[in-house]
Amino acid sequence: MKTVVVRLTGRSYKVLIGKGLISRLGSSVHGLAPGDAAFIVTNSFLKRAFGRPLEKSLAQAGYATKFMCVPDAESSKSFGQAARVISALTRFDKGRRTFIIALGGGVIGDLAGFVASVYRRGIAYVQVPTTLLAQVDSSIGGKTAVDLESGKNLAGTFYQPRLVLADVGLLRSLDSRQLRSGLAEVIKYGIIRDAGLFTYIERNPVRVLAGDPRALAYIVQRCAAIKASIVSQDEREEKGLRTILNFGHTIGHAVEAAGGFRRYNHGEAIALGMLVACGISRRLGLLAEKQFSRVESLIKRIGLPARIRGVRFEKIIKAHYHDKKFKGATNRFVLVSGIGKVVVCDGIALGVIKEALRERF
Amino acid sequence: MKTVVVRLTGRSYKVLIGKGLISRLGSSVHGLAPGDAAFIVTNSFLKRAFGRPLEKSLAQAGYATKFMCVPDAESSKSFGQAARVISALTRFDKGRRTFIIALGGGVIGDLAGFVASVYRRGIAYVQVPTTLLAQVDSSIGGKTAVDLESGKNLAGTFYQPRLVLADVGLLRSLDSRQLRSGLAEVIKYGIIRDAGLFTYIERNPVRVLAGDPRALAYIVQRCAAIKASIVSQDEREEKGLRTILNFGHTIGHAVEAAGGFRRYNHGEAIALGMLVACGISRRLGLLAEKQFSRVESLIKRIGLPARIRGVRFEKIIKAHYHDKKFKGATNRFVLVSGIGKVVVCDGIALGVIKEALRERF
Repeated sequence: MKTVVVRLTGRSYKVLIGKGLISRLGSSVHGLAPGDAAFIVTNSFLKRAFGRPLEKSLAQAGYATKFMCVPDAESSKSFGQAARVISALTRFDKGRRTFIIALGGGVIGDLAGFVASVYRRGIAYVQVPTTLLAQVDSSIGGKTAVDLESGKNLAGTFYQPRLVLADVGLLRSLDSRQLRSGLAEVIKYGIIRDAGLFTYIERNPVRVLAGDPRALAYIVQRCAAIKASIVSQDEREEKGLRTILNFGHTIGHAVEAAGGFRRYNHGEAIALGMLVACGISRRLGLLAEKQFSRVESLIKRIGLPARIRGVRFEKIIKAHYHDKKFKGATNRFVLVSGIGKVVVCDGIALGVIKEALRERF
Repeated sequence: MKTVVVRLTGRSYKVLIGKGLISRLGSSVHGLAPGDAAFIVTNSFLKRAFGRPLEKSLAQAGYATKFMCVPDAESSKSFGQAARVISALTRFDKGRRTFIIALGGGVIGDLAGFVASVYRRGIAYVQVPTTLLAQVDSSIGGKTAVDLESGKNLAGTFYQPRLVLADVGLLRSLDSRQLRSGLAEVIKYGIIRDAGLFTYIERNPVRVLAGDPRALAYIVQRCAAIKASIVSQDEREEKGLRTILNFGHTIGHAVEAAGGFRRYNHGEAIALGMLVACGISRRLGLLAEKQFSRVESLIKRIGLPARIRGVRFEKIIKAHYHDKKFKGATNRFVLVSGIGKVVVCDGIALGVIKEALRERF
């Protein structure tokens, strides 16, 4: 088992990474004294797949447990669903001290974290991420959110979990498209902070794509360490540092939105967004041709899209104006000056953005 | 103008108290750099009464403004209303940095504070309380909340405002029942922490009930100072200190709920709850007969109820079991050992509680 610590004064917590950790959840949370009963937010598929060992481990450690299943869809991230979870929690919570366990991917983590942050003005929660995307990114750092009709993630909080338990054994439940989607974020970490991680994926694409637990544990640990370090220094995204985690996301979000959130999933859109950001970097003379090619080759080798199909160019440009990262009269891009090195730039000329995007068609 | 400071590391803020302060809101917030546009959450009555000077003052300080009126009812404290406020805010917020102003009583303060805490994971907000209850209590301390169908205040956050502007001139909009209701919380502060404040109300009931601005400013400042001191030491109600603010609230909430939130308003119910808590204290030998009589006389002189009518005894006892302050197998009461001195006690015998409550019928 590997351990990464997110250091925050008075609220530090561990990210535990390894295979089979779910059977040790009860003993892992015990020392944290999060409460005496666990309310597990998940979906019916994950409950069937992993509910039994999780429940057993919690029962052995003396915790009462209760499962609450929400639909496996982005639409579960809503005020309405949050109210339903809180109602069930209120009924279960009578006379005990309850904590929440988020067993799922980003949607469940965001929803359960949001509920934990607002129920009785905050109770303890634990993240048990079940997707690669959630293990390397969304489960760490305390960003919680629900969507409103007027936009995604419009309501949310910064609220840190007490523990993140990243059991790479759970990733066997992913299909290869979901695994590849998660690898897009892994490649992102390599590009922004860790040339060694990038090289590792270049050298071991087969092991990684086959879901080898050791390779996955290595990858998750490297990513978690980067995320933990950034969150420790800039918890609330106030110092600009956390911004670099948005590498590839400005155009990525626009591609995702322009495709109606159906054509490309998050990781695929981010892969395309990273290529556009690298294209802008190359055009501005920041990134050498050879480095650019390494990024493009790796994305292709992992089976992520390098070309945009089925989404119109103009629709992406329009969506990019609406992204919340585009503030006031200027835009903001995380650009690359070499594998492992990024810079944040404001006011990139629209012509350059368009050229770099056009190249992806 | 009087100033009270709520001291919290990195998030200290001022409570400004005086008459006519609303016309100085623009210049008061200016140094705080909360943003460049103000989104004012209020109701249509308050907008008509105080919107003009507020808007003018903000415009003079260079802020764009937008009013959003919500219904003047407890039902405005809901996820649904929060979503509507956020939608309007999103439309107004394009390309600017917006902060929220809560112009209203407890309902508007709780709702607007909740929205400020979750919109884009937290934006700045300012409290401009318009009721005595809100000026002395709910606007200070950062407790925000919405109600769910399963219970009141079930979702909320601790999220501090940047400024509280308590303009006692706004209290002229209150009818005498609302003013008396606020005075119940003022008497509470006197009993828990400030014998001088208690004596002041005993000696000046006429000035206070007539809404004399100087008397009100004095009262609000004394209460704000107590609340600020307690919140500074126990922001998140973790150290037990903030608990003393719940004096009178255990039975008070039960009376309010048992009366369907119609028979008695909050302040009236708290007055009755304080008398029961004093009755328990007297029975346990904590409070002298003479001190008990002072409390009872003052409550009567202010025109607050000292006897319960139209709510059944058993219904109150039952509701008190459901109060969230009643945890697990025991209960918790804030009891009085003299005017200005309280103690927190667990596990009060039900027989004693019943006797003290019976006395109010």
